Amino acid sequence: MYRSHNCGELNVSNINTEVTLAGWVQKSRDKGFMNWVDLRDRYGVTQLIFDEGRSEKSVFELAKTLGREYVIQVKGTVIEREAKNKNMTTGDIEILVSELTILNASLTPPFTIEDETDGGEDIRMKYRYLDIRRNPVKNNLLFRHKVTMEVRKYLSDLDFCEVETPYLIKSTPEGARDFVVPSRMNEGQFYALPQSPQTFKQLLMVGGMDKYFQIVKCFRDEDLRADRQPEFTQIDCEMAFVEQEDILNVFEGLTRHLLKEIKGVDVEKFPRITYDYAMKTYGNDKPDIRFGMEFGELNEFAQHKDFPVFNAAELVVGIAVPGAGIYTRKEIDGLIDWMKRPQVGASGMVYVKCNDDGTYKSSVDKFYDQQDLAHWAKITGAKVGDMIFVVSGPAHKTRTQLSALRMELAARLGLRNPGEFAPLWVVDFPLLELDEESGRYHAMHHPFTSPKPEDMALLETDPGKVRANAYDMVLNGNEIGGGSIRIHDKATQQLMFKYLGFTSEEAKEQFGFLMDAFQFGAPPHGGLAFGLDRLVAILGGQETIRDFIAFPKNNSGRDVMIDAPSKIDDTQLKELHIKLV
Amino acid sequence: MYRSHNCGELNVSNINTEVTLAGWVQKSRDKGFMNWVDLRDRYGVTQLIFDEGRSEKSVFELAKTLGREYVIQVKGTVIEREAKNKNMTTGDIEILVSELTILNASLTPPFTIEDETDGGEDIRMKYRYLDIRRNPVKNNLLFRHKVTMEVRKYLSDLDFCEVETPYLIKSTPEGARDFVVPSRMNEGQFYALPQSPQTFKQLLMVGGMDKYFQIVKCFRDEDLRADRQPEFTQIDCEMAFVEQEDILNVFEGLTRHLLKEIKGVDVEKFPRITYDYAMKTYGNDKPDIRFGMEFGELNEFAQHKDFPVFNAAELVVGIAVPGAGIYTRKEIDGLIDWMKRPQVGASGMVYVKCNDDGTYKSSVDKFYDQQDLAHWAKITGAKVGDMIFVVSGPAHKTRTQLSALRMELAARLGLRNPGEFAPLWVVDFPLLELDEESGRYHAMHHPFTSPKPEDMALLETDPGKVRANAYDMVLNGNEIGGGSIRIHDKATQQLMFKYLGFTSEEAKEQFGFLMDAFQFGAPPHGGLAFGLDRLVAILGGQETIRDFIAFPKNNSGRDVMIDAPSKIDDTQLKELHIKLV
Repeated sequence: MYRSHNCGELNVSNINTEVTLAGWVQKSRDKGFMNWVDLRDRYGVTQLIFDEGRSEKSVFELAKTLGREYVIQVKGTVIEREAKNKNMTTGDIEILVSELTILNASLTPPFTIEDETDGGEDIRMKYRYLDIRRNPVKNNLLFRHKVTMEVRKYLSDLDFCEVETPYLIKSTPEGARDFVVPSRMNEGQFYALPQSPQTFKQLLMVGGMDKYFQIVKCFRDEDLRADRQPEFTQIDCEMAFVEQEDILNVFEGLTRHLLKEIKGVDVEKFPRITYDYAMKTYGNDKPDIRFGMEFGELNEFAQHKDFPVFNAAELVVGIAVPGAGIYTRKEIDGLIDWMKRPQVGASGMVYVKCNDDGTYKSSVDKFYDQQDLAHWAKITGAKVGDMIFVVSGPAHKTRTQLSALRMELAARLGLRNPGEFAPLWVVDFPLLELDEESGRYHAMHHPFTSPKPEDMALLETDPGKVRANAYDMVLNGNEIGGGSIRIHDKATQQLMFKYLGFTSEEAKEQFGFLMDAFQFGAPPHGGLAFGLDRLVAILGGQETIRDFIAFPKNNSGRDVMIDAPSKIDDTQLKELHIKLV
Repeated sequence: MYRSHNCGELNVSNINTEVTLAGWVQKSRDKGFMNWVDLRDRYGVTQLIFDEGRSEKSVFELAKTLGREYVIQVKGTVIEREAKNKNMTTGDIEILVSELTILNASLTPPFTIEDETDGGEDIRMKYRYLDIRRNPVKNNLLFRHKVTMEVRKYLSDLDFCEVETPYLIKSTPEGARDFVVPSRMNEGQFYALPQSPQTFKQLLMVGGMDKYFQIVKCFRDEDLRADRQPEFTQIDCEMAFVEQEDILNVFEGLTRHLLKEIKGVDVEKFPRITYDYAMKTYGNDKPDIRFGMEFGELNEFAQHKDFPVFNAAELVVGIAVPGAGIYTRKEIDGLIDWMKRPQVGASGMVYVKCNDDGTYKSSVDKFYDQQDLAHWAKITGAKVGDMIFVVSGPAHKTRTQLSALRMELAARLGLRNPGEFAPLWVVDFPLLELDEESGRYHAMHHPFTSPKPEDMALLETDPGKVRANAYDMVLNGNEIGGGSIRIHDKATQQLMFKYLGFTSEEAKEQFGFLMDAFQFGAPPHGGLAFGLDRLVAILGGQETIRDFIAFPKNNSGRDVMIDAPSKIDDTQLKELHIKLV
């Protein structure tokens, strides 16, 4: 062992102890006759002192050659510091060094290894191994480990069994794009990397392993939006002989446990709201409920007046922004412009100031009297000093626009406190979603989701109205998990594939093994999956998942550190029975 | 929830309780007026009773329709059994059923769902979800979970941090063949799936994360020998600021912990033997030391006599087989034939019987007198009643042949007791191995392994003699883990690539990122990896890893259950910029 102690543990109780430390030179202050070096490792920083009077000449001289990030080993005595540093756990002591060994030199690092670094995103990704030396990144990785340990412990204690499912599986064109792997031994054939272990976990249920989980990498070859990764990690779970309520309870319990153990936060029983309610109230199926600003639907009091825009709209909807009554005309115009940007796409926005004297001043005073506006205030819950913003148009689109405004204003008003945690369940998701381009329905969750039995009849008449036993867990405006009760009989699964536009041949070829399995005594089952990267980031009070992944890829799916992907040899291509085109 | 209890927990303390159970019909015995059904779930079997006199007619009649593997839910009362079954935890009670619901019917399964099944390997793989219902397979998966939980707990308690490394990495032609993944977004380029996270864990050390582990899938596109899988799981570990001794101690501790916690077995400090000693003594770098039969080198007392075969040999070596003196001539001839099979390849074998009266009878009595043979007995440790078998030829080949005999005879003599655990370390592996075909040296472990500093000079003069700081953990004749102290400076790493026949361009292109990293303060580091599949199998007292993998592939790398790999669409190929040839 190169050290007797680490750089984070020595204190006054160790004074006069002979110790050996090893680590990196964080910084060095050479005062001529005295040289202080901050030695850093994973556990902390300890101050070393080289003193012309007290150190051997060779050691003293060698210390002067140390550069930033040199790896050194020192032997010395723990002594009390003259100038104590209360901000460091080791701030009361320093090491008077008697022996110094340079274990490895270092070039000057391309950015500073400090909590606040001067390195930009690109350079930090290229030298990720240096970035990991920085406390923020290092602590995120340690935090991730702590979360996964707690998850495993909690589920294992409830008799869940972690089962590894295969990574080399079968490609199915349904859903997102697969990454594929050419098979050398099976010419012209390909494996696919799993987008999730969905079918395997269902087969484990058929196999009687009634409580399964796995923390597992999944893969999607999607065009990467900001903060998406081609490989990502799921906490994947499934249970048999359960109803939706049982699943919600177990994983609400897990999440409550994590919040308590990891963050020290107690949360109440999670609210459960339906998808329809979420859309109507927040314009969003993953509402952030750390703050209010719930939607008020104003059709009744905004239509049938002389304002043609509202009269023509399917939906007129507003929110009351607390304390925003003081916004200047310029600020309001800025917000209207913000709403009109293509990313949001509103055609305009109406505002109503709730004056201190109880009157209202709006941009549509020409069309609405004080009584009308009082109705609006009542419905949106606006108080004196608030501002009501109102948008109108096609229902879904308008709700989405107002949701964007709600989130933006909450951020500006500091209502999105990362230290506050407001989880909830959104339930009763629609089974199907109309793809406007193709005019075809596709599964909102996936084709294995069970429709609600009472809605089965609607499949023929009004497929968009069929609700599923599907649910999402939402935390601070992020979907952190989602799942469903699955279909467990062949007939319903066949029907579902039919509705999704599979021919029976296609269904059989791609999912025949699952439908076969359903014929041999498949139990009722369901489950969910958490997005671990996102969950960890949110628990860590941050929103960027990349900071919680040791070696992330950039938006082109490249690992810029190792420079992958890369070309491969012709020999390799030949063995795989493929060539480039 | 479909059940109030599981099928393994009810006993006399529950008598008169109303319960709800759900599970699979294991078997049904219809006696006309009485019908017993064994209901099975993951936790056990509970007997149900349907009685013409005590059950409702509809329930009684419905019970008669139940087939094997039907999934049912029952409500009923726990009653005491008349004929108790002491072999079942639930054997004192049965459930008098009042309500019966068939949750799902089942076709007749293609093999019996019993501990001893009538299904062959192929059919069980195709219907693996049914195979998993069988206790032996189910218990193996639960056992695997238990082992991984203990591993994580042990390492985490020692401050090891589990870090997920990427699966989409860079292909390197060195080593085994990579599985590759064509990149859609980077035309003409490929990711590779990791053969191990080797370089990433080293970069984590450079990054200061000084104790890392990960239970991680790895991939090798090899021609599959029996009991190899294209995807397999490693417990991958690395530490910084350590010497070999520290690593051996930590992972010996882990293994001892597993043996204690999982098997209730206390083992002594692991013996440590060198590679050279292992080869000389057991003819094998992964010796099974649950039994003796150590090699005796007989050159001194077997050569320079009149037996030309031995005189011409580089090595004459024998083992004493305990109690084998009674082997008949036929048995001995059988063993000689066994040794001459192409799989072993011996050209012959000499035997010496150690008679009860202290004399010897050998197949080479013509050339050797009793005193010669007494020397042989002394060197091989043969006792009265034993048999000495002697082979000769080129040293390495001959040792390997005798090792095969040693293992075979131990198996025949019942000395390979799966309930006994004899771990050891084999250390000081050679750094390089001569590839006889190409005449080139390649890395025995991998190119990142550090040569022993004292052997560095031999690299120029006698590369085959250079020893590495490399070690294997061996358990019951299986290598269950291996690792090394790594090179951590650019110059040595460059030198190593040169000796391995890389041009400096090749080295830079493939491993430039690692050598760059070594320039920014890389600490001394080393580690090891356990093969989890094998470790679990051996701890489970079995040798076949496939039985400890939920969804294994066959020897052609196929998943016969889901039928993967498979053809993919032309659209997919086109998007990936490849075509089939």
